[in-house]
Amino acid sequence: MTQKEPITVAITGAAGNIAYSLIYRICTGELFGNDQTLNLNLIDIEPALPILEGLIMELEDSNFHLINKILFTIDPFEGFRDADYAILLGAFPRNKNQTRKDLLGKNSPIFKIQGKALSLVAKRTVKVVVVGNPVNTNALVTAKYAENIPKENIVALTRLDMNRSLSQLSRKLTKNVSNIKNVFTWGNHSASQFVDLSNGYLLENSKKTPLTELVDEEWISGEFQKINQMRGKEVLLKRGKSSAGSAANAVLDCLKSWIYGTETYVSMGVISDNNPYNVPENLIFSFPCTCKNGTWKIAKDLKPNEFCKKMIKKNVDELLEERRIAFELLKD
Amino acid sequence: MTQKEPITVAITGAAGNIAYSLIYRICTGELFGNDQTLNLNLIDIEPALPILEGLIMELEDSNFHLINKILFTIDPFEGFRDADYAILLGAFPRNKNQTRKDLLGKNSPIFKIQGKALSLVAKRTVKVVVVGNPVNTNALVTAKYAENIPKENIVALTRLDMNRSLSQLSRKLTKNVSNIKNVFTWGNHSASQFVDLSNGYLLENSKKTPLTELVDEEWISGEFQKINQMRGKEVLLKRGKSSAGSAANAVLDCLKSWIYGTETYVSMGVISDNNPYNVPENLIFSFPCTCKNGTWKIAKDLKPNEFCKKMIKKNVDELLEERRIAFELLKD
Repeated sequence: MTQKEPITVAITGAAGNIAYSLIYRICTGELFGNDQTLNLNLIDIEPALPILEGLIMELEDSNFHLINKILFTIDPFEGFRDADYAILLGAFPRNKNQTRKDLLGKNSPIFKIQGKALSLVAKRTVKVVVVGNPVNTNALVTAKYAENIPKENIVALTRLDMNRSLSQLSRKLTKNVSNIKNVFTWGNHSASQFVDLSNGYLLENSKKTPLTELVDEEWISGEFQKINQMRGKEVLLKRGKSSAGSAANAVLDCLKSWIYGTETYVSMGVISDNNPYNVPENLIFSFPCTCKNGTWKIAKDLKPNEFCKKMIKKNVDELLEERRIAFELLKD
Repeated sequence: MTQKEPITVAITGAAGNIAYSLIYRICTGELFGNDQTLNLNLIDIEPALPILEGLIMELEDSNFHLINKILFTIDPFEGFRDADYAILLGAFPRNKNQTRKDLLGKNSPIFKIQGKALSLVAKRTVKVVVVGNPVNTNALVTAKYAENIPKENIVALTRLDMNRSLSQLSRKLTKNVSNIKNVFTWGNHSASQFVDLSNGYLLENSKKTPLTELVDEEWISGEFQKINQMRGKEVLLKRGKSSAGSAANAVLDCLKSWIYGTETYVSMGVISDNNPYNVPENLIFSFPCTCKNGTWKIAKDLKPNEFCKKMIKKNVDELLEERRIAFELLKD
């Protein structure tokens, strides 16, 4: 097979656990194809550099034939150079005693610099997936300062929430997950997230059965939402470490949808401009999206019920407040 | 694509770091194909069960369409049931104050039980890859007690040693690793391991150049061997954790070679019966192997030089001593 000219994939937080799960899967060709060579630009903070060096030794020892070049750096202006893809995993984690405001205060400046760096040195067509929390506002800050990059190119990961909802439904219905369609989350990747089943259906033998006919409303608005909200904590409790493999998997799912297209709705945190759901402009908000030819579109034809509208409003309010805090902090 | 009936893949030490890297890659279909559904039997010790539960939650949340069923257990007689493949990652790690004998004392009884379990409940055609150290002797103990399983079905992983040698040569020669052929290790997976370059060549534009013409003998017998021996420690020092992703990758490489065949030599730790290199019978020894139709063969036509013969002898002596200790300990 003739190999394609290398593309450049930049990853921040590259010494972390999500990266450790993600990078190997990218190197096998699972995401970009078995003929697509790669320049990997691995970015992390200074104290993590030895870990990055160890990772690079292991990648060398894996002899991936698709790797053209690996670079590691603490400088986003070097790491994002000519990037075709940027996956922003790195962020300060939330401590027990920190408020959401503290967290925004720690992370907004990082994403401001990364936005500026992307703007200055990445390809204008770069596709950016933000994963570090608080992800919606981190992505918004990135978009604000990445002046030369279209806002459409910057997406916040909300796919793990969707994947978790699907997996829970699959167990509840004892049906294969690939038969469950059009389940997605609205709004913020936070405890306020709202999983919308009202458009979802089970596809069996070409027959579509609405999910609302298969699970009762009490379960949907109660246990189902709660399990989704608590899933991350539950995994952390069991493993003693936060979700890494499933987060990396969700990043891959998100990028596969974005690059190769979708047939049904998927959750993506995208810029809210021109949405038909009364979400104010200039927020990064999780919407049901469809993708085609490398671009996403917000699904336009849905009719959220009153409860859903209320939950969208709640998420809007939360994100407006996050934006206010972040932009206030970043004022020059 | 129509999916094939599930095969059963059993993994011990499934809560560990190598497993965490390995299992996701197996679930994508990278090893057994994108149409091969899987029963995953995850085995670990009691204290690790919560970690396993957390891993299973994450696998659920990754919605791999190839997973048919996941089972987790501490009992190898349950975990190996109907196994088509068994990957034995679990072993007591070596503490600073432990001798090799102490380590054999800890691990031999585990692999004895696992051998018995494989014999009793796995498919007779099961392919077993042993990874936990001391890997050669652990594999030999497994083979001894797996009376119903042909000894040819049990392989000790020495592929990571080969992969590390290849990656080092690739950097030394600044050549793509896929152009470097027939480099392999003899003997024990230990500090005594010997990487043999005397049959290796660089393939460029259909021209084969012997590696011995490209790198000088002093480097081969000095720095090259030393870097290979120290590579694992070096990674541990940098990462603060031992090699996991590259070890998982080597397991996949080993199984791909075994299942799908090879064109050149690869390192596999296999039963020494009927080898032409004066290695006594009934040892698990790393030989240059070729694979075809799911079976391996020791390369027969090599002419080890005097130094290589000396190194083979050194490895034989070490493995005879390990075998003596292990079998002595296991006497009923």
